[in-house]
Amino acid sequence: MNIQWANGVSGMDNPAVNDVLKIIQRNDIISFAGGLPSARSFPIKELAAAFHSTLLEEGAAALQYGVANGYEPLRSWVAERLQKQGIDCKPGNIIITNGSQQVLDLACRLLVNPGDAIAVENPTYLAAIQVFKGAQANILPVPVDAYGMNIDELAKVLQREKPKFIYVNPTFQNPTGVTMTVERRQQLAQLAAKYQVPVVEDNPYGELRYDGTPVPPIKSFPGGEWVLYAGTISKIVAPGLRIGWMAAGEEFIAKMASAKQISDVLTNSLTQRALYRYLCNHDIDNHIGTIVAQYKEQRDSMLEAMKAFFPAEVTWTIPDGGMFIWATLPENIDTTKLLPEAIKEKVAFVPGAPFYSDDTGQSHNTMRLNFSNSTPDMIYEGMERLGRLLKAHVR
Amino acid sequence: MNIQWANGVSGMDNPAVNDVLKIIQRNDIISFAGGLPSARSFPIKELAAAFHSTLLEEGAAALQYGVANGYEPLRSWVAERLQKQGIDCKPGNIIITNGSQQVLDLACRLLVNPGDAIAVENPTYLAAIQVFKGAQANILPVPVDAYGMNIDELAKVLQREKPKFIYVNPTFQNPTGVTMTVERRQQLAQLAAKYQVPVVEDNPYGELRYDGTPVPPIKSFPGGEWVLYAGTISKIVAPGLRIGWMAAGEEFIAKMASAKQISDVLTNSLTQRALYRYLCNHDIDNHIGTIVAQYKEQRDSMLEAMKAFFPAEVTWTIPDGGMFIWATLPENIDTTKLLPEAIKEKVAFVPGAPFYSDDTGQSHNTMRLNFSNSTPDMIYEGMERLGRLLKAHVR
Repeated sequence: MNIQWANGVSGMDNPAVNDVLKIIQRNDIISFAGGLPSARSFPIKELAAAFHSTLLEEGAAALQYGVANGYEPLRSWVAERLQKQGIDCKPGNIIITNGSQQVLDLACRLLVNPGDAIAVENPTYLAAIQVFKGAQANILPVPVDAYGMNIDELAKVLQREKPKFIYVNPTFQNPTGVTMTVERRQQLAQLAAKYQVPVVEDNPYGELRYDGTPVPPIKSFPGGEWVLYAGTISKIVAPGLRIGWMAAGEEFIAKMASAKQISDVLTNSLTQRALYRYLCNHDIDNHIGTIVAQYKEQRDSMLEAMKAFFPAEVTWTIPDGGMFIWATLPENIDTTKLLPEAIKEKVAFVPGAPFYSDDTGQSHNTMRLNFSNSTPDMIYEGMERLGRLLKAHVR
Repeated sequence: MNIQWANGVSGMDNPAVNDVLKIIQRNDIISFAGGLPSARSFPIKELAAAFHSTLLEEGAAALQYGVANGYEPLRSWVAERLQKQGIDCKPGNIIITNGSQQVLDLACRLLVNPGDAIAVENPTYLAAIQVFKGAQANILPVPVDAYGMNIDELAKVLQREKPKFIYVNPTFQNPTGVTMTVERRQQLAQLAAKYQVPVVEDNPYGELRYDGTPVPPIKSFPGGEWVLYAGTISKIVAPGLRIGWMAAGEEFIAKMASAKQISDVLTNSLTQRALYRYLCNHDIDNHIGTIVAQYKEQRDSMLEAMKAFFPAEVTWTIPDGGMFIWATLPENIDTTKLLPEAIKEKVAFVPGAPFYSDDTGQSHNTMRLNFSNSTPDMIYEGMERLGRLLKAHVR
């Protein structure tokens, strides 16, 4: 059987990601490779009650087909929450999706023809690179520094190219952990309006802040009507429920609903309703507070252990929130080659390379370290192993 | 805000479908327009127990991320069930999707470049036309008669064109209700292998048989390795759970998993596990038997009422199963124009036009009538209203 694949298929797959997925399934390895929330934080009993009462009290509707843009009360809940963060929106500005990954996918489908450009942070979320490559987009990398995407560099890109959208993960970025400053957010929203280029603001981690003051979403600044805002309950409730959303103008929501309809008709009705019930019956901010306390301890443990065990030549970001620390090693160390050695020592990370859309920057000597899914003890033990390995490689 | 949409977007939307969706939400109309299963058949209590025990006994795993191709025990269950229907497959040949609509979408993404051809039954499932148009495919219509897709006509198409795949809904077809004969299935599988063109066999209704003997899937015949088989629990358990699957060769499953990964990471883990638990703890064939008994009565009521109330000039299919009857009216009646009048009389159907990928055939004077979501009383009442209207229009 000799299948002729479509042109986008070669860009969809990333062997590095597949390797990571295999590693995180092995129990004998201390893995800082994944991006998994801690199962300790899942509100299991509360969700069990919510699913049970949803089925018994509104089972017929919860098991039936529904509208593509999602369960109205859940959309209202999302709209209210976003309003509190400064985003001007109504339930009609919200569509519910299968996690926020589907927002990226459907946004591509609505905006990108093969060969069109998308501007991204470099490095950026690796599954965003994959979906953009799958759409056969021409990816325009814009450097990231300690203050987020470099807006001056973006402005230069916008002067010479017309990307279909600008993709950013501005708060506790995956993979670097850095947060875009207020000033840059303001500038980015202005640039979007000036050049009439939509921004996809992907904010899965924004609620997980351990230090400092919350920064308003890009969508809340003047020009924010150009921003398509993606959110999710994956990191504040549970990822296995696959509930995310996009906030955007009504015209965009309507097109997105058409794309959603042909992609998979609608998001799981039962889960939308049970989640809404859970959110009504429990204080989500209180629950987020519990997760934040746990992850803060884990982040602090990782930073402490890095200081204690890593050679002086290694530097790293100190994220104010989220799930990731980004380490930069001496130039002579290629983290892709280091990974198999680390696995022999029963510790894992994600090499930096797959987060870069091109070969510039420090793609070869960086690594992403996840602290959300390991206890402080595991973190110390894993960091000690990794530190030993790094010391052996530093010249 | 002036957005430049991607080229496929204009094909995604179908105002006729949107109208239908609005109509089925109105409570004052007897609607034969939707394709909804009857909520009376949903195993609400059994699912409530399954979700509850899944969360309490394996909540941490059920709420976490999982692999893109789906929960292994559920894939095994699907593989065993398909084996009983004559399909040679193992769990590695199955991927779980958000309903079988996602199979169509991901198959397009893997196989179709803009301008590529897809051969379809004419008429065919309207949301298939939309997803194929969204992929900017060139749709090649092949006529359907009482025995399914006309295979001689398909052979002529394959002699002059090289479609990326052939899409068929061979059992109790949506919209006509007809079932492809064994002989044609055999021929179709042979043609697929001869011309090396994959077949997408979409079988959402196959388990709902009211008369006659089950017909083996196209995938079970020689040449079946070219068949991508799509199934779903939407019509035998509940559509709101959004669980479907594809059976195919391992190479295709691997590519599909990559496409799934970038589209929405994975299908709802909790629902996959709870559904599996439900399927283990209950006799699904017994449950299907209950649905079949109910729908058979409704189909019979509709056929009887059509005979009693429709003018002699109208003809219709007599489906052996599924959810739809297809009526052909005298040439002078345009069902698209008739629909607003029917709605005034508080009865609804779907006009034939959106099921046709071109303007040939009897696109204007046909209608699809759904019997799965109305009681016999409602069916009699609705058919009487519709019959009165039709009589007024027959010349």
